[in-house]
Amino acid sequence: MVTETSKEKTHPGDGNVIISVDAMGSDRGPSSVIAGMAKCRDANPNIGFIVHGDSAQLKALLNRRDDLASVCEIRHADDVVTMDARPGHVMRNGRNTSMWSAVDAVRNKEATAVVSCGNTGALMAVSMTRLRRLPGVDRPAIACLWPSHNPGGFNVMLDVGADIRANADDLMQYALMGASYARTGLGLERPRIGLLNVGAEEHKGRAELRAAHDLIDQAAPDAGFAFVGFVEGGDIPSARVDVIVTDGFTGNIALKTGEGTAMLIRKFLRTALGRSPLSRLGALLAAKSLRGLHKAIDPRHMNGGVFLGLNGTVVKSHGAADATGVAAAIRLAFRLAQPEFTERLAAQVASCGRARHDAGNDHNADGESE
Amino acid sequence: MVTETSKEKTHPGDGNVIISVDAMGSDRGPSSVIAGMAKCRDANPNIGFIVHGDSAQLKALLNRRDDLASVCEIRHADDVVTMDARPGHVMRNGRNTSMWSAVDAVRNKEATAVVSCGNTGALMAVSMTRLRRLPGVDRPAIACLWPSHNPGGFNVMLDVGADIRANADDLMQYALMGASYARTGLGLERPRIGLLNVGAEEHKGRAELRAAHDLIDQAAPDAGFAFVGFVEGGDIPSARVDVIVTDGFTGNIALKTGEGTAMLIRKFLRTALGRSPLSRLGALLAAKSLRGLHKAIDPRHMNGGVFLGLNGTVVKSHGAADATGVAAAIRLAFRLAQPEFTERLAAQVASCGRARHDAGNDHNADGESE
Repeated sequence: MVTETSKEKTHPGDGNVIISVDAMGSDRGPSSVIAGMAKCRDANPNIGFIVHGDSAQLKALLNRRDDLASVCEIRHADDVVTMDARPGHVMRNGRNTSMWSAVDAVRNKEATAVVSCGNTGALMAVSMTRLRRLPGVDRPAIACLWPSHNPGGFNVMLDVGADIRANADDLMQYALMGASYARTGLGLERPRIGLLNVGAEEHKGRAELRAAHDLIDQAAPDAGFAFVGFVEGGDIPSARVDVIVTDGFTGNIALKTGEGTAMLIRKFLRTALGRSPLSRLGALLAAKSLRGLHKAIDPRHMNGGVFLGLNGTVVKSHGAADATGVAAAIRLAFRLAQPEFTERLAAQVASCGRARHDAGNDHNADGESE
Repeated sequence: MVTETSKEKTHPGDGNVIISVDAMGSDRGPSSVIAGMAKCRDANPNIGFIVHGDSAQLKALLNRRDDLASVCEIRHADDVVTMDARPGHVMRNGRNTSMWSAVDAVRNKEATAVVSCGNTGALMAVSMTRLRRLPGVDRPAIACLWPSHNPGGFNVMLDVGADIRANADDLMQYALMGASYARTGLGLERPRIGLLNVGAEEHKGRAELRAAHDLIDQAAPDAGFAFVGFVEGGDIPSARVDVIVTDGFTGNIALKTGEGTAMLIRKFLRTALGRSPLSRLGALLAAKSLRGLHKAIDPRHMNGGVFLGLNGTVVKSHGAADATGVAAAIRLAFRLAQPEFTERLAAQVASCGRARHDAGNDHNADGESE
């Protein structure tokens, strides 16, 4: 490992949107991260990168990619945050990691958004410490995209794992943040928000959910979203809503349950189509359409959990993401890397904060994160 | 509606396993319930029924089915529990409903198990009142079958909606009850139990989950199951576990998320295969295999939530179940209608209850149910 901390100053490109990329967190090593950056650069001439990690490795990987290298600054970091690192340990000892350096590029306004494949808990801890929460935000949240029956093909769900707890005020803030995300990320002017519960009737669910129901309902007219009330698990991919609000425990379980179900059905489909010569021929004829289906339900194409509620945009890519997955996360970061996104989100939370009641508010937001 | 309460004494069949069926709760009316019973009777000569509801309607429906009528006793009930009825209201005013009558047939030892398509909350309330909890059980649970990568094709998950809360002791009892279900329902001698959480590491999740982890771990050797520790949402359909333990809020969301995801993918598959003449031809050739796939992920074939922890077996069928769905629920009731099932489950809970600590135990079990 190279020991000196050097700044390889090249030229991320004047006027380009600069994305800061942690190249070292991925299970597949930096090569898949660089390959994902190259895919994005090929498709988008307005993108530039600051890439963080072991400069010798990164230089070697960029050597073969002149086009990417021309818009890419390498920033050396000695250390890497491992997948099993505890967030508290990284906060105390992580100054020399590529993750820390990547987040600091957003803190220092050198980049508009950061992408990392690293450990979720550590990335959230470093992001909270270095970027700080937006004024009025008690708990940041992680938002994911979910394939849906809606015309745009995706719904947003949050929180999917930033914090296992959320009180009524937190859930109300998630509604505001999710609405901002849907406006910028999905291009929806007036997103429809649903609150996840075990039934659609207003008397159902835990007390904090009923309180959140009333808070979100009151906030909806001024915040420019429509509140559809309680929704159930089956509504997450539905065309009834654009944004599903829940606590990070439930959201994480739902997300992984959906992924697990999709994987099970893909396996069943493969087995079914390989069963007889006739069905193998059928599968061959329908191959193009089936590839379209696999793409529609392929988790790689919706890769990227967005941390909302911080002074800057942070996108967490899946640790096992390949080039396609990393490219999806970078594209998402690019779409959200509009200065108005964070500003508008902050304004929304602040204006609602003035109106909302403070009773029972929990300001301890450095709790357990996933 | 017929007003007198009559007992149409026919002959459910000597030596047969008698299933008590509430014919009136279904969204589709009693005809689909009777059709489901007929399917089961055709496939299983050892089954008999006591069927509860409007005797005029039921007589008319049975008129055309001599074979079924010969093993079917009609028991008239004036009232029906509606889908939007509050459980408390049904407990106070439900004596003349077909649901109450159906549960009472198990209470009176005339039938070994009861099947109803009615309102879940009301069915749980009536079952708790009339059958009573097993000694030592604080909260009964609803267990469902989940298609899985395991050789048997199914995993068990509980609780999926009996109660939105569960403390560490409740979760430990769910593990015992789920193990009994897997032994009798899936034929597994030593089921593997997993506790649902947001990560597999032991320090993750809420405090009651970490406490439940230790309780279940301690109970495993004597209770004859293997404890695999924490599992994540993606493990619910996996071959790592046979039984997934969680609280009724999380379980209900996961169940409905899985169903919603399966429905989304079915729609995508249909769209993909109809896209071009070539893929339509391919789908035609693979039609038989695709039917097999649809059957494997068709929620109707795994219909039936089982209420565990009561003095008797109660199976809740989906309200919208057609004949195929009702037949699946009745088959499940038949499989669990072995007197040893409830007895062994009771013995397991009792022997573990003697060992487990009582601190923090919540004996209020008439709380909100779904």
